[in-house]
Amino acid sequence: MADRQRSDARRNYTRILAVAEEEVAAHGADASLEQIARIAGVGSATVRRHFPTRRALLEAVSRTRIEALSVRAHDLTGGEDSREALLEWLSDVVAYSASARGLAAALAYDGAQLDPVHENSCTATLEEAGAPLLHRAVQDGAVEPGVTVADLITLVVGIALATEHHPDPAAEADRLFRLTVAGLSPHGPVSSTATHH
Amino acid sequence: MADRQRSDARRNYTRILAVAEEEVAAHGADASLEQIARIAGVGSATVRRHFPTRRALLEAVSRTRIEALSVRAHDLTGGEDSREALLEWLSDVVAYSASARGLAAALAYDGAQLDPVHENSCTATLEEAGAPLLHRAVQDGAVEPGVTVADLITLVVGIALATEHHPDPAAEADRLFRLTVAGLSPHGPVSSTATHH
Repeated sequence: MADRQRSDARRNYTRILAVAEEEVAAHGADASLEQIARIAGVGSATVRRHFPTRRALLEAVSRTRIEALSVRAHDLTGGEDSREALLEWLSDVVAYSASARGLAAALAYDGAQLDPVHENSCTATLEEAGAPLLHRAVQDGAVEPGVTVADLITLVVGIALATEHHPDPAAEADRLFRLTVAGLSPHGPVSSTATHH
Repeated sequence: MADRQRSDARRNYTRILAVAEEEVAAHGADASLEQIARIAGVGSATVRRHFPTRRALLEAVSRTRIEALSVRAHDLTGGEDSREALLEWLSDVVAYSASARGLAAALAYDGAQLDPVHENSCTATLEEAGAPLLHRAVQDGAVEPGVTVADLITLVVGIALATEHHPDPAAEADRLFRLTVAGLSPHGPVSSTATHH
């Protein structure tokens, strides 16, 4: 009976978290907890038992997405084209940041609400996951040596924050990310260096 | 006597605004109104008479800076190198956004506090000011045709928002802006197109 209860609890936890991910992606950090309970087919009390606060739920959603991004980075690391692999991963980080509207701000960038342990662990996890991708891209000369994973993630978070109130945040964030990748240097340093040699 | 009062009032207004600009640059949107009154050498009542709310003062500061950026854009438009002129202007916009910590967020990007008239007029003023610079840079092939001034300003605001809590926001914002200008495409579209021709 205790086993049965435990496995029910686990199933509920997983189901609530999966629904919460979708609801947060669709409605941002303000997603309705009642709606999440309804779609997951559980009572509000069950949601509260697993996630006593909205913040606890948002942290769990964020942790799950960060873990998925880490796995993705690992999968991409073996790819042929190191620049493409890095950009594909960053593009996923953009999509995550944009779909988690308000999540980055709510969890990581609002001094007042800062939870250093959670923030540090998310940042550290993403930085660690992206490091091999960036390392290979730098080795292949696709990215300048001084650039860090933290730089790239800060740019991505900035794009997500600045497009938050756009009518279509995901599309606009993606557009601006592509612009960032292209840069404003079609006649910039590398081509001119090549010409001068 | 009325003339004398009017010119005193004008002088106070200008002085308060100048001090407020510096204080907001140094301490962000939370700059102390008492401190501003003290440095300007006026009483708190005088500050309140000219700027009834913190928001009114922040809007005036922001408007002044936006106007200065417009003048700057105009001055740069005749420059030799259109790409350099655009980048110099954007770099000023970065410095403004970073020094006005919290200002962008407080005035323009927080849905709840949104003042559409002010926001639209700032955005419109900057977009109008930057348009000739961008237009020339695009004509000279330094920036891709689809890019708008709004895109560039959104990227800049994003950088400012994402570096807000950095120990040295201005330096970090400048660093990330340079990274954005360089892009992640040293072997990207333009060089490869050139190679394939």
